[in-house]
Amino acid sequence: MPLPEWVPIREDLRGYEPYGAPQLPDLISLNVNENPYAPSEAVADDIAAAVRAAALGLNRYPDREATELRERLAQYLGHDLTGDHVWAANGSNEVMLQILQAFGGPGRTAVSFAPTYSMYPEYARDTHTRWVAGRRADDFTVDPQAAVELIKAEQPDVVLLTSPNNPTGTALPLATVEAVLDVAPGVVVVDEAYAEFRRAGTPTALELLDTHPRLLVTRTMSKAFALAGGRVGYVAADPAVIDALRIVRLPYHLSAVTQAAATAALAHADELLAQVDALREARDELAAWLAGRGYDVAESDANFVLFGRFADRHAVWQGLVDRGVLIRETGPEGWLRVSVGTPEEMDAFYTALMEVDPR
Amino acid sequence: MPLPEWVPIREDLRGYEPYGAPQLPDLISLNVNENPYAPSEAVADDIAAAVRAAALGLNRYPDREATELRERLAQYLGHDLTGDHVWAANGSNEVMLQILQAFGGPGRTAVSFAPTYSMYPEYARDTHTRWVAGRRADDFTVDPQAAVELIKAEQPDVVLLTSPNNPTGTALPLATVEAVLDVAPGVVVVDEAYAEFRRAGTPTALELLDTHPRLLVTRTMSKAFALAGGRVGYVAADPAVIDALRIVRLPYHLSAVTQAAATAALAHADELLAQVDALREARDELAAWLAGRGYDVAESDANFVLFGRFADRHAVWQGLVDRGVLIRETGPEGWLRVSVGTPEEMDAFYTALMEVDPR
Repeated sequence: MPLPEWVPIREDLRGYEPYGAPQLPDLISLNVNENPYAPSEAVADDIAAAVRAAALGLNRYPDREATELRERLAQYLGHDLTGDHVWAANGSNEVMLQILQAFGGPGRTAVSFAPTYSMYPEYARDTHTRWVAGRRADDFTVDPQAAVELIKAEQPDVVLLTSPNNPTGTALPLATVEAVLDVAPGVVVVDEAYAEFRRAGTPTALELLDTHPRLLVTRTMSKAFALAGGRVGYVAADPAVIDALRIVRLPYHLSAVTQAAATAALAHADELLAQVDALREARDELAAWLAGRGYDVAESDANFVLFGRFADRHAVWQGLVDRGVLIRETGPEGWLRVSVGTPEEMDAFYTALMEVDPR
Repeated sequence: MPLPEWVPIREDLRGYEPYGAPQLPDLISLNVNENPYAPSEAVADDIAAAVRAAALGLNRYPDREATELRERLAQYLGHDLTGDHVWAANGSNEVMLQILQAFGGPGRTAVSFAPTYSMYPEYARDTHTRWVAGRRADDFTVDPQAAVELIKAEQPDVVLLTSPNNPTGTALPLATVEAVLDVAPGVVVVDEAYAEFRRAGTPTALELLDTHPRLLVTRTMSKAFALAGGRVGYVAADPAVIDALRIVRLPYHLSAVTQAAATAALAHADELLAQVDALREARDELAAWLAGRGYDVAESDANFVLFGRFADRHAVWQGLVDRGVLIRETGPEGWLRVSVGTPEEMDAFYTALMEVDPR
């Protein structure tokens, strides 16, 4: 519903809707790339115990620097990173907003390669950063030569690469990241929200950090760590880049409760990540099943698969909703994205899709 | 330490330091207006139980609308408000950032009246909003006629009033708020972070909400609710104004853990707020003691007192630090701000101040 005229919102925001997929909790949720495996009772116990200890001091402000959590995240990432190389915020979207606040803004430009994560233009809009979307190839890969040419032409202050890409699942070869780093005049962000799901042999841009100080690699606890509800995103970069983010962060942005819960969850990394292998196998099965049914299927290193093409994708999406299965109507026209769920959820999806789109 | 030249931060941010008072946890902390009374074991138990229940579903994203928490906050505020009139975020500073993102921004102006909360210019800077600071009178009140004239001249998109004001403690008469509302062309925000500490007879701007749709009243759970570590700020306004904030909020900005912890704490409102009366009495005693020692003391409706004036306030601040008491070097030149602590903390402050500044 449009805002009444009397609401003095910025004119360039008028007509926008709040970002977000439908939240229909009664359906099987294969729409927002959540991890279908809930934290165990043991993990919940430890999170609750950590929060209880924090609760007795909640009258005090939290550690503004989230020192312990950042150190634990650095340990998890490896690659000789320390807490000084890591910054954390309320979800990787707050991390990304802070990156664009520090390095983008009025008179500055951000470049990415579409189709890609649909929040990026919103971060740019909200920070008044000029947004330039290059194109991916038909197979959703980024052509390094085309990327280099676009960056040379636009001279962007921020380049956003995504590996694996959302909503296509496409991972980037490090050579492409390096080619971009070689010509980009500003910072280069590799969004690795789904990195833990990548196939064997797919690299992480963390490997490039120690030789490329203007590289930022973002991660999240929402996906592999099954902590979407905990809202913890983070970024690894040179400590001086982290210091730049500290200038624009709101003081005490990360609550003592969040710091305690995330630190407790990280202590269970082995258990929480144990489901990742199962999800990768289920992802490959899902892709094979869809291909077997004759769909076009984008190669995926993530916990979701983009498939198509449909003359009327909305009708297919609606038909699945009517059968209790919620997937995502996103990405290029004619394609749909489905997240990897449990075996039972996958069976429900397979059954529903065969009914909606018999072939 | 300045950033190295190679860090491509926005030039207008270069040279800034991250905002924040020193965090020196070993000292008696009377510097950031925290509530000195920690949540009880019973409150901690309930917060932990609520978080444990939430933890078992943390693989899913949280309710993007924070529906239950907003309804509980509306019930707490009264004045016939509903959840649709309330928005919540990670501390009132995220609320304020969202307000300036929606209603401020490039080409727009925000007006406030200094001395006032030192984060306001940072919200303006981070949203590229032009910042105009009017002056308060020598007794730190806002002269309604001068305010009206400034607003007529500047035509601000956002007016930020603060009642009780930080760092001076000064509350605003509703007539001043109404005078500003009558001439302000945009939104008027009354920041009532410290409202629960106001003296008997001091009004709240909530009373004006139903007749003034462009009025926003912000509150926080950090102070009276003793939940600074939980990071929950909120705002009450017309539902259409809340809808404008929803356009710029990051999706899932408020974690399931935060929503659970805050909702559990609100169920203990009576207990948590029980200390407010004691703190108001201690505030009045503190003001009287300081006046009795011959200091200038700003009239305070908050849980802190601004006092002075010192030829070298930094030396006094440092002398107190050396004696284990941390207060805040803030506000107009020559003044210092001290938060109201427990009786023991107050005694330590009195003793230390008499040593540092014998009169």
